[in-house]
Amino acid sequence: MTDLVTFGETMLRLSPPQQERLETADQYDVHIAGAESNVAVAAQRLGLDTAWLSKLPNSPVGRRVTGELRRHGVTVEVSWDDSDDGRQGTYYLEQGDVPRGNDVIYDRAGASITTLATGEVPEGLVEDADALHTSGITPALSDRVETTTADLLERANDAGTTTCFDLNYRSKLWSHAEARSVVTELFPDIDVLVVAQRDAEQVLGRTGDALDVAASLTADHGFDVTVVTRGADGVVAATADDEYVQGSFEASDAHPVGSGDSFVGGFLSQYLTTGSVPEGLEWGAATAALKRSVPGDIAVVSPSEVRELIEGETAAISR
Amino acid sequence: MTDLVTFGETMLRLSPPQQERLETADQYDVHIAGAESNVAVAAQRLGLDTAWLSKLPNSPVGRRVTGELRRHGVTVEVSWDDSDDGRQGTYYLEQGDVPRGNDVIYDRAGASITTLATGEVPEGLVEDADALHTSGITPALSDRVETTTADLLERANDAGTTTCFDLNYRSKLWSHAEARSVVTELFPDIDVLVVAQRDAEQVLGRTGDALDVAASLTADHGFDVTVVTRGADGVVAATADDEYVQGSFEASDAHPVGSGDSFVGGFLSQYLTTGSVPEGLEWGAATAALKRSVPGDIAVVSPSEVRELIEGETAAISR
Amino acid sequence: MTDLVTFGETMLRLSPPQQERLETADQYDVHIAGAESNVAVAAQRLGLDTAWLSKLPNSPVGRRVTGELRRHGVTVEVSWDDSDDGRQGTYYLEQGDVPRGNDVIYDRAGASITTLATGEVPEGLVEDADALHTSGITPALSDRVETTTADLLERANDAGTTTCFDLNYRSKLWSHAEARSVVTELFPDIDVLVVAQRDAEQVLGRTGDALDVAASLTADHGFDVTVVTRGADGVVAATADDEYVQGSFEASDAHPVGSGDSFVGGFLSQYLTTGSVPEGLEWGAATAALKRSVPGDIAVVSPSEVRELIEGETAAISR
Amino acid sequence: MTDLVTFGETMLRLSPPQQERLETADQYDVHIAGAESNVAVAAQRLGLDTAWLSKLPNSPVGRRVTGELRRHGVTVEVSWDDSDDGRQGTYYLEQGDVPRGNDVIYDRAGASITTLATGEVPEGLVEDADALHTSGITPALSDRVETTTADLLERANDAGTTTCFDLNYRSKLWSHAEARSVVTELFPDIDVLVVAQRDAEQVLGRTGDALDVAASLTADHGFDVTVVTRGADGVVAATADDEYVQGSFEASDAHPVGSGDSFVGGFLSQYLTTGSVPEGLEWGAATAALKRSVPGDIAVVSPSEVRELIEGETAAISR
Amino acid sequence: MTDLVTFGETMLRLSPPQQERLETADQYDVHIAGAESNVAVAAQRLGLDTAWLSKLPNSPVGRRVTGELRRHGVTVEVSWDDSDDGRQGTYYLEQGDVPRGNDVIYDRAGASITTLATGEVPEGLVEDADALHTSGITPALSDRVETTTADLLERANDAGTTTCFDLNYRSKLWSHAEARSVVTELFPDIDVLVVAQRDAEQVLGRTGDALDVAASLTADHGFDVTVVTRGADGVVAATADDEYVQGSFEASDAHPVGSGDSFVGGFLSQYLTTGSVPEGLEWGAATAALKRSVPGDIAVVSPSEVRELIEGETAAISR
Amino acid sequence: MTDLVTFGETMLRLSPPQQERLETADQYDVHIAGAESNVAVAAQRLGLDTAWLSKLPNSPVGRRVTGELRRHGVTVEVSWDDSDDGRQGTYYLEQGDVPRGNDVIYDRAGASITTLATGEVPEGLVEDADALHTSGITPALSDRVETTTADLLERANDAGTTTCFDLNYRSKLWSHAEARSVVTELFPDIDVLVVAQRDAEQVLGRTGDALDVAASLTADHGFDVTVVTRGADGVVAATADDEYVQGSFEASDAHPVGSGDSFVGGFLSQYLTTGSVPEGLEWGAATAALKRSVPGDIAVVSPSEVRELIEGETAAISR
Repeated sequence: MTDLVTFGETMLRLSPPQQERLETADQYDVHIAGAESNVAVAAQRLGLDTAWLSKLPNSPVGRRVTGELRRHGVTVEVSWDDSDDGRQGTYYLEQGDVPRGNDVIYDRAGASITTLATGEVPEGLVEDADALHTSGITPALSDRVETTTADLLERANDAGTTTCFDLNYRSKLWSHAEARSVVTELFPDIDVLVVAQRDAEQVLGRTGDALDVAASLTADHGFDVTVVTRGADGVVAATADDEYVQGSFEASDAHPVGSGDSFVGGFLSQYLTTGSVPEGLEWGAATAALKRSVPGDIAVVSPSEVRELIEGETAAISR
Repeated sequence: MTDLVTFGETMLRLSPPQQERLETADQYDVHIAGAESNVAVAAQRLGLDTAWLSKLPNSPVGRRVTGELRRHGVTVEVSWDDSDDGRQGTYYLEQGDVPRGNDVIYDRAGASITTLATGEVPEGLVEDADALHTSGITPALSDRVETTTADLLERANDAGTTTCFDLNYRSKLWSHAEARSVVTELFPDIDVLVVAQRDAEQVLGRTGDALDVAASLTADHGFDVTVVTRGADGVVAATADDEYVQGSFEASDAHPVGSGDSFVGGFLSQYLTTGSVPEGLEWGAATAALKRSVPGDIAVVSPSEVRELIEGETAAISR
Repeated sequence: MTDLVTFGETMLRLSPPQQERLETADQYDVHIAGAESNVAVAAQRLGLDTAWLSKLPNSPVGRRVTGELRRHGVTVEVSWDDSDDGRQGTYYLEQGDVPRGNDVIYDRAGASITTLATGEVPEGLVEDADALHTSGITPALSDRVETTTADLLERANDAGTTTCFDLNYRSKLWSHAEARSVVTELFPDIDVLVVAQRDAEQVLGRTGDALDVAASLTADHGFDVTVVTRGADGVVAATADDEYVQGSFEASDAHPVGSGDSFVGGFLSQYLTTGSVPEGLEWGAATAALKRSVPGDIAVVSPSEVRELIEGETAAISR
Repeated sequence: MTDLVTFGETMLRLSPPQQERLETADQYDVHIAGAESNVAVAAQRLGLDTAWLSKLPNSPVGRRVTGELRRHGVTVEVSWDDSDDGRQGTYYLEQGDVPRGNDVIYDRAGASITTLATGEVPEGLVEDADALHTSGITPALSDRVETTTADLLERANDAGTTTCFDLNYRSKLWSHAEARSVVTELFPDIDVLVVAQRDAEQVLGRTGDALDVAASLTADHGFDVTVVTRGADGVVAATADDEYVQGSFEASDAHPVGSGDSFVGGFLSQYLTTGSVPEGLEWGAATAALKRSVPGDIAVVSPSEVRELIEGETAAISR
Repeated sequence: MTDLVTFGETMLRLSPPQQERLETADQYDVHIAGAESNVAVAAQRLGLDTAWLSKLPNSPVGRRVTGELRRHGVTVEVSWDDSDDGRQGTYYLEQGDVPRGNDVIYDRAGASITTLATGEVPEGLVEDADALHTSGITPALSDRVETTTADLLERANDAGTTTCFDLNYRSKLWSHAEARSVVTELFPDIDVLVVAQRDAEQVLGRTGDALDVAASLTADHGFDVTVVTRGADGVVAATADDEYVQGSFEASDAHPVGSGDSFVGGFLSQYLTTGSVPEGLEWGAATAALKRSVPGDIAVVSPSEVRELIEGETAAISR
Repeated sequence: MTDLVTFGETMLRLSPPQQERLETADQYDVHIAGAESNVAVAAQRLGLDTAWLSKLPNSPVGRRVTGELRRHGVTVEVSWDDSDDGRQGTYYLEQGDVPRGNDVIYDRAGASITTLATGEVPEGLVEDADALHTSGITPALSDRVETTTADLLERANDAGTTTCFDLNYRSKLWSHAEARSVVTELFPDIDVLVVAQRDAEQVLGRTGDALDVAASLTADHGFDVTVVTRGADGVVAATADDEYVQGSFEASDAHPVGSGDSFVGGFLSQYLTTGSVPEGLEWGAATAALKRSVPGDIAVVSPSEVRELIEGETAAISR
């Protein structure tokens, strides 16, 4: 049985080596990148049996995505798009340095996943899993996928599958108002909400102390747990009965992209198996920290590395 | 005054290094590639004063295209697309080896150029030039661009600007019938036609000997000259009065992409300045051959290299 | 159910880029390489559901091997070696050019697989598969693995699983006499034998016409089919009733390493599903030819590429 | 009309990748580098219409320089040296790390520019421009170029073209005394002086507070404005009537080479268009800071990046 | 005459570029690495005439080691292993970032050097040298090499050759107890002991203040000098009569591997020529600091760089 | 004792990777290249004890040259140039493909070696060697070096050291007439002459059959042996008594630069030890052929590779 199914788009990420610029570099590094597949990879590497659900063009570039995910052990549940119009979503990432920030150019409009209908999802995939995870990016991709997202969350909920949702607001995909309208429609089918404090404020209108935000979201929507992330300030969480605070681990600034998804993957790897929120938060924070030292979007980490970081073992070379 | 304006789309070309595969390579080489800008670069490097007309997203990736063209001396006449929807057309090129062929995946739908209206073209740009060149790819991009192409050819014709058209059929953009319908509408405004023998047959329905095809096209449509290309078998051409045959130069198989456009650039560099068809054919063939030894889509060659090849100088190292 | 289980060692292959030399290159390309995993990847990519059985050190380097195989869809059945002594077998490959040949330096002694005992193999893995494949390299690795190989072939045979064996003589592992003694012991449990003509002569003492060699091996040992490979001269095969000849496809000299294994993978992809020997030979030959254009040991090819090659479609660029 | 002409030498810069050493690296990154062309590129990218005046060998290496400058939009006014003796100036740059500093080895003696005579400069180039910029490096290259520099500054001055001069002392080209003697001869024709505080002291003998140095230089030589740069401590400037202080922006240590020239380019982009010294200083400081995050000698930056830095927008990823 | 002979194993070091991971990188950088050859290179580059004694497989990979050492001027005294079993020791190094540490995987078992017998060492090599250096790694490699180490130290001692020993405990090679037993047997033949404070405690059981540890070791074993290293806290040393303290120089964290050996090489370059312990410590500390900015295991530094660092010259670019 | 001293300039060679162009490549591969050091390396690797005599700037770039030569075992006898004016000669090499030839741009004027006086050469270096080798490039570098060359050849001759001279005409250094005048002055001190047939004709005025040219040169100048090289057509040689013909081995076109020097190195490795001209020719031809498969200017080959090629062993992979 699958422990965790994640659902969303995975793009090709094209980025100049080192600090080179998109305008002038002669080579681009190629990675794959998708919020939900990032979660799947992190969770799989940390012990869960995960699957990733999506739609891709049937091409070498589409197969690159699935190959890279399978490499990390994730089961791939892809609806292959053989149409002439289906395309592979891509994004350009330029990694900056002080004072030049990272620059992102999305080129994801019309990607194959925007046509994914509920009927293309295998029967039982979601129902037979322990948990289903998706993010606010997915329903923002197209009206069709918004419907599919709602359908799958409902099917999961009906089947007793734990549902996890990372709000993950993307200003280049929709407005705050659109996001609020759609995601609050989904809330009744959601068990675990992860939301950045800024998104809680701007999309959901929840201001104030992070713990209060978490507690009120849990209370208002009946979530099992709400996790509010605060970047370098760590994360907090609230269930109906308890509140939790987890600091962040010291980490490099070199490869921040994907660390939020790595948090979710680390969190779920424990929360789904032990039911413990604080253990989940600790594993999430450690996984996110380790990710920041790894090039690409994906947390190429191992359970022992997470465990050693939590246990505070030194980084001295063992030889 | 500009000698030659070329008009069309230029894409980003992403290709794995050496013989690596798109599915597994970790880096892609980045080049720019467009039939008409390839012509502009070749002609500019061989002595003409050229400009390239197009529309691009106002982004680092769009500026990469213009930067690369300016590097070779081409004047850039670009309508910058500041909309959120404008995208940079791309294509993936995998370079094969025997028996694996080259593989091309276009990802050009919805590129900024598809919205280019005649009104966005600077007054006088086409009228004040000696010549205007475009290809059959351009009107195939969108209805809007089809109209713009027709408008520009008409304006050029009215102004006495020599018009050159490379039929350049792309099966991934339109059918033979669609192509025939559109390009024959353009023929009255065209002075110089370049067409591959296969396209002459499949699109224009002209079968038989290449010289006869060239002669009949010239006769039927009143072209100043028709050039029929035959790959490694060389090219032929026909004016109302004369016929010409030009063999191909021995050349590497390493980098064939763009050699057809290099032929046109080399041809125009002479034809537009001397009026001599055979000199044009000879320079075109030599430029195309040199291109095949140069990575990327663009003929990074010099007039002296073309001249030496034509004069048969040896390739021995001079030191 | 698994269609095909392959069993053997997979090494890390370290090779200088291009034609650089091992002695002076500052970087080595890293690939994975193993006769039996090469077969598994080719067969999986061409449609079979395959698994690979082996033993590896529990380290990032060992995980590199499994990750790369999973990327191509192969199921990994690995006994992880947590001992301090287990090591990852490696080999250095220097790719030459005329007149300098390829150079291979093995560094595989004491690899984890040399300790793999029959008891470490999951119950049913071999028995429940359609087919089991291994090569003469495997029993040559250690006495322990020789026993394990014999056990698995016997278990497969008893369970009605088709057994395939590629003799694949390696002079750096054992002598002709040792090889002959061991492999002929295994022959009673083998259904399909693949053997290079040179090995048939030097190891098995079978001289003369390749078809005769194939026919006599089939007759003497009761194989379902014997395939005799002859490099650029193609392959022949003999069943009890028929003989088959398959020429080789024209192919590059660039990346020959692994083409023999690609042949086997292509052959089995058809033979195991259709039962047709000539179809198997044709797919094997086409897969091997395509492999020769692909860097690394592994046939990163698709069924459509194989089919197009067989059907003689041109290598012209489709665009 | 050209807004700004800059005049000087541009070298090929050869540097080992990352922190590799010149003595042992197997590849060198190739950039172009020249104080005055660096200024031209920065100013052009920030909105001015610039030209660069120099002399280069007529070779692929010389054309590399012009191609790279044209890429950024700079108009190239080059006297091509067809003599056998003309060479392309080069320099080796090794990028260090603490405690190893950057190492520079010039190999610029006898470069083509050392023979550039006033008569080779197109009529009107300097006279018709808004401004002319050069640095103390240029007259130090050869006696011939010293004369040419004086001639051009005088012609500019006579024509009412604003003249800008960055003292830019290079100990490997001349002594403090030689520099002082030559540049003070040029001062009467100079409107804007940029000078590092250390050079003001060591070459011009001006000690004390930076603002006082700027004010006294302005007063003594009748400059429109004197800018004194102080590295990480920012810059100050003095006109006859006012004094200005501009701090530096926080910036990476990764790519400091060329940041001084980027300051000048940013400064002129505003000063020449608005006449405002403080706006010029602010744009200069921001451009210099951004440059420090960009590999190579050249400020590959955009006006919006400069504006965002000045307006203090966060470096968070926008997506 | 040779100033210094060092004796030990040199491995091939395979490391992914930048912060890539061993599990996923497609290329590994190749360096050579050996504690004693690192010492030899540093000392040779800083002025001594050094030789390195070892045993290597007679292969391109073995010759890579000697070629790299000769490049730095070290004389190579190698017993070439022509057996089939001799292998080149290797190690995998993954360079981390916060919070991910460096990761080392040794693959050195059965390397050719483990079979090096005293009889294979040229007569007079050790006796005619000024000094012999080895480390605690060497006797840990095999029983055979333990004997050879003891023999050579004895021969050196008898001949009046100064003997230097860096304890250099490696937990992957032996236990604390084994190390203590073997190295204390060697102590009577040792003149100069270098030991990390942690090893002094864990292997030799010396706790307390570093100076006291150094002094008591000198007193108890009659060493000429004992040097106790303390990482970023600097080093201390004690002779029978004096005690010395040397701080560390500020240095990058980028390339720490090999800095300890660089300290020893820098120390010996002065101690062996001037007899001065404090000068040795200062050169050692400066060499170690410079090493940390240089990729690979080897201190590619020059005497002038060491001298400038000691004299506190600024790291500003000289041009 | 040294078997062979070679004397000449070694440059840094800068070449774009693969078939990239000098004008546009972003990285250049760095090699060292000098006719006489190429000979030294080949001869050293094939068994002689060689030294290389030259003058270099005392810089990291100069040390790169010596380091690379020492790597191959050559003893370096360099006069280090500490002047500010001494520079490292360089050359740019662009590797072409059909129909684009290789392109060479020398940048060697004023290199340190042009100031090398006889007095800087260590006493006995030439006198105590078995043989001295230089080429026609060396006296063409400067008047000073012309004198030094004559002095050294005379000293060698007087001391009974065998002298070898490869005429090696370089049109970019001097005219045919200048070359003829200088080298014929040197002939009385030369024992072994190597000359390309084209140079024999153009510089020495010897036309006709290659064997006749060799014989007449031997007869007229009293050489021990004259070798006339004819590229792919092989070589011939004549002593006073005998004539020899040696064909060329089939070889790649990939890396021809340096193959002539490799021939001389291979020739001398045998001729100087066995006295046999035909063995020398055979080793020379085989070494030159192997060189053509090795990137860079230097023959990174081994005696066993040469022997296997001569003995006609197959290039099949041994494993």
